[in-house]
Amino acid sequence: MFRHERPVRFAEVDAARIVYFARFLDFCHDALEALFAPLPGGYAHLTMVRGVGFPSVRVEVDYLAPLRYGDVALIDVAVERLGTRSITLRYVLTRAADGVRSAVVRQVVVVSRLEALASIDMPDDVRALLAPHLALPSA
Amino acid sequence: MFRHERPVRFAEVDAARIVYFARFLDFCHDALEALFAPLPGGYAHLTMVRGVGFPSVRVEVDYLAPLRYGDVALIDVAVERLGTRSITLRYVLTRAADGVRSAVVRQVVVVSRLEALASIDMPDDVRALLAPHLALPSA
Amino acid sequence: MFRHERPVRFAEVDAARIVYFARFLDFCHDALEALFAPLPGGYAHLTMVRGVGFPSVRVEVDYLAPLRYGDVALIDVAVERLGTRSITLRYVLTRAADGVRSAVVRQVVVVSRLEALASIDMPDDVRALLAPHLALPSA
Amino acid sequence: MFRHERPVRFAEVDAARIVYFARFLDFCHDALEALFAPLPGGYAHLTMVRGVGFPSVRVEVDYLAPLRYGDVALIDVAVERLGTRSITLRYVLTRAADGVRSAVVRQVVVVSRLEALASIDMPDDVRALLAPHLALPSA
Repeated sequence: MFRHERPVRFAEVDAARIVYFARFLDFCHDALEALFAPLPGGYAHLTMVRGVGFPSVRVEVDYLAPLRYGDVALIDVAVERLGTRSITLRYVLTRAADGVRSAVVRQVVVVSRLEALASIDMPDDVRALLAPHLALPSA
Repeated sequence: MFRHERPVRFAEVDAARIVYFARFLDFCHDALEALFAPLPGGYAHLTMVRGVGFPSVRVEVDYLAPLRYGDVALIDVAVERLGTRSITLRYVLTRAADGVRSAVVRQVVVVSRLEALASIDMPDDVRALLAPHLALPSA
Repeated sequence: MFRHERPVRFAEVDAARIVYFARFLDFCHDALEALFAPLPGGYAHLTMVRGVGFPSVRVEVDYLAPLRYGDVALIDVAVERLGTRSITLRYVLTRAADGVRSAVVRQVVVVSRLEALASIDMPDDVRALLAPHLALPSA
Repeated sequence: MFRHERPVRFAEVDAARIVYFARFLDFCHDALEALFAPLPGGYAHLTMVRGVGFPSVRVEVDYLAPLRYGDVALIDVAVERLGTRSITLRYVLTRAADGVRSAVVRQVVVVSRLEALASIDMPDDVRALLAPHLALPSA
């Protein structure tokens, strides 16, 4: 598992004063970018130079408790499934201050050549990076 | 059913040059705000003055085809379920130019008093507004 | 002059419940995209197919009165200066409900080939589109 | 002076593949939030609990060189002027990899009670926090 810590920013709440529902996915993507940091040049090099990316095909979010400005989210990323050309990721967002679980996100992505948006086999270094984060879908 | 037309904006794509996965939910929320326009003062009056809102408890997105800058999304909103205190919405996003289905989103929201984030019975005018958009989950 | 009408969206306010200062520039860009709609394919075709765009070199914003969720902004766009390779735009944002001026934005952009981010002479159709909106910097 | 390091995120570029002009202000605000971290509870406590904030009245941006996905911005924040009820801030954004200056931002804010959006005298701890960052407007 991989943990990314991420404070809520001033502009991320909506008119109801809670983090806007779409932004939970920003939190997940930030965690994913952080997860790829060990690759040379990180996620940016992978996507921009090597042209390999992970378009989503399916996302599920369960919202359990709101995040507000001042909260820090702990985002635990696990890999539920590591296929030949697809990956299932699971993100659990917890409020740092009180340990309350805020959201659980499942995301299925397809390993793709970004130029053509066509699926490709997962590069070996990506598989090696993700394999240690494999975890059963329970937890 | 209710249709909302919404062009992709210049800043809504990501480094892969397709609409960023989180922003599909912005498209849905824009359509929802448009759906509530017939209420006096629209969604803004409902949320800001009457203090009634619809925090999400569950969102599912199936991404079928990318949106790019220059695309116009047609967003068809249907109500799948109209409970006492919850609503299940379904959004189908279609690219206007070629009619290709881009994404299908299901969203379950809880009718809530926003101040306390506590569920309440659905106001009659909200129910009356949504009832004509009830549609079976097939489509 | 060109007028674009644009409601504040639910997620555009910040934790202080007023439209976040950076988003005023989104309002301006939306108005600019609307201004270019008469060109075939609009701003998207100009930037994505012809590869011509307008990177900013200077922006000035005077914030005069806040925008809140529920407000509709009227954005009046004028061209203050139409150079060979640069354009100075002026946007006045007014709250529709009470006519209060919310912000004045000046933006200097360079007509550019986007691929290289190098300045080019303004295409004739762009000049023809903008010329009728020339207005003195007073107002 | 205060330095904040901030990578460009995947979704922060626009259709021209450079960081969208409005987002430069997000970078500045992130740096400002970081600058306030030494106060108990940081910027969030100041704004949300004490109700003190800094609405902008004036912003000027000079865009000098683009930021792209993969770039890390170094944001140097200096206080140009520390008035009774207003503050002038200056942000210099530099690309970490090549040291090229990307943008210079000046921002004038009014120390305000957020509820009423009315100016107030600067709290002593805010002044004490900012005073060490006073710098002449040259640089």
